[in-house]
Amino acid sequence: MKTPFIFPIRVYYEDTDAGGVVYHANYLNFFERTRTEMLRDLGFEQNELRAQAGIIFAVKNMQIDYLRPAKFNDLLHVSAEILQLKRASFTFEQTIKCGDITLCTCSCRIVCINVEAFQPTAIPDFLFDAFLTKYNEH
Amino acid sequence: MKTPFIFPIRVYYEDTDAGGVVYHANYLNFFERTRTEMLRDLGFEQNELRAQAGIIFAVKNMQIDYLRPAKFNDLLHVSAEILQLKRASFTFEQTIKCGDITLCTCSCRIVCINVEAFQPTAIPDFLFDAFLTKYNEH
Amino acid sequence: MKTPFIFPIRVYYEDTDAGGVVYHANYLNFFERTRTEMLRDLGFEQNELRAQAGIIFAVKNMQIDYLRPAKFNDLLHVSAEILQLKRASFTFEQTIKCGDITLCTCSCRIVCINVEAFQPTAIPDFLFDAFLTKYNEH
Amino acid sequence: MKTPFIFPIRVYYEDTDAGGVVYHANYLNFFERTRTEMLRDLGFEQNELRAQAGIIFAVKNMQIDYLRPAKFNDLLHVSAEILQLKRASFTFEQTIKCGDITLCTCSCRIVCINVEAFQPTAIPDFLFDAFLTKYNEH
Repeated sequence: MKTPFIFPIRVYYEDTDAGGVVYHANYLNFFERTRTEMLRDLGFEQNELRAQAGIIFAVKNMQIDYLRPAKFNDLLHVSAEILQLKRASFTFEQTIKCGDITLCTCSCRIVCINVEAFQPTAIPDFLFDAFLTKYNEH
Repeated sequence: MKTPFIFPIRVYYEDTDAGGVVYHANYLNFFERTRTEMLRDLGFEQNELRAQAGIIFAVKNMQIDYLRPAKFNDLLHVSAEILQLKRASFTFEQTIKCGDITLCTCSCRIVCINVEAFQPTAIPDFLFDAFLTKYNEH
Repeated sequence: MKTPFIFPIRVYYEDTDAGGVVYHANYLNFFERTRTEMLRDLGFEQNELRAQAGIIFAVKNMQIDYLRPAKFNDLLHVSAEILQLKRASFTFEQTIKCGDITLCTCSCRIVCINVEAFQPTAIPDFLFDAFLTKYNEH
Repeated sequence: MKTPFIFPIRVYYEDTDAGGVVYHANYLNFFERTRTEMLRDLGFEQNELRAQAGIIFAVKNMQIDYLRPAKFNDLLHVSAEILQLKRASFTFEQTIKCGDITLCTCSCRIVCINVEAFQPTAIPDFLFDAFLTKYNEH
């Protein structure tokens, strides 16, 4: 049982809004950067998956809870865990923390998409097996 | 019983990603522009609400379903309805359509925030009454 | 001799940063939206130009002067004029105003790109002639 | 004489557009992240400069040359050097490279702004001296 994948993200001016805090849509960028880095950590580059396996990943749905605001210059730590794994989709549970304080959580379902047809397709076996390992760590 | 507030939004290059469709976080921008325009349609400017009543609005949570992708140059129509109204928060139900096709739906709870304390505060009466009218239209 | 093309743009929270004003990179979005709308006003849709003529437009260089900041909720008017026209590129002069106050100006050269080769290519005649008309209006 | 400050930046989906490459405005984000990290490397945090010295930095003007496009998943290296130093402003020269290939260059003048008056003000001595050291390294 391993801890979830964690990725550090710094808050820059581009991420904030006139309310003085991170603009609510930009947390979704932080979540996606972290999913991308978790895939990279597993050995998968999404540009290669697209070129070689003809697949991309698309967000199907998302639930986000905004608990406390992140501010300019904060150093955040964003987590990603695979909590459910199906043939053509998988569900991530993610959190954004600043120090010990949880700022934002999300649950999102990601669908594997055939890039030509732009339709859902089965996750390739080599990828499914890698996800299964991560999934079984919980 | 009136139809919900509807706002037209054009998709520009800035909204899209290398998948060829609108980047998933950017739908949240479209939803917020529409909530802002609904408030303006009710007679309220958020910069004045901040300066005169000391309040801003913050997204507390959000559920988003991505049904079909929006593409570069699409002309979208985004709706906003108030479905629940409490003393310090209100819930919007929103959709994004391209023609007759629904591309994305969201439900989000918005909290009224005191801009000094950055804490939830009661919605001012003049605003609450305007929301109540909208809410009762359903 | 006609006035330049003018497009109205509202400033939303997504456009601002923690400095309380529009984030400097986002003015480039406003400039591009306006170039896109000028093309549309001339009768050209960029998704059709890409599908039918195999071309897209890319920014080659840009000079931007930030004179005064735009703020949340400002209603801006963004202009676009073609000041130079070559076989494979054209130069825009653009301004962003709030009321009578000029906030930002830019000069940018746009190159016509063959979408397959991602290389500069001659502007198609039907488009060149339309630009020439605009150019000669000055 | 030291090499310029260099900061690595990964390209994510959020940075790209439907042209398949990084959206032209987003290079400005990369440039600013790198200026921010160079300041941090010199020992200065911009949130503290704002809180303690009452100053923020604003871009006054910018010249950008787009040479080749950056693509999804590219690992970029962004440089920052101070090339001119005045009492209330300084000029950066910056480049974005992918491997040995230069993709984008910019020159930008940054003004020191008093956050209350939102007017140019002299760079505080402790900061000016640190910049002077960097400036003299060239």
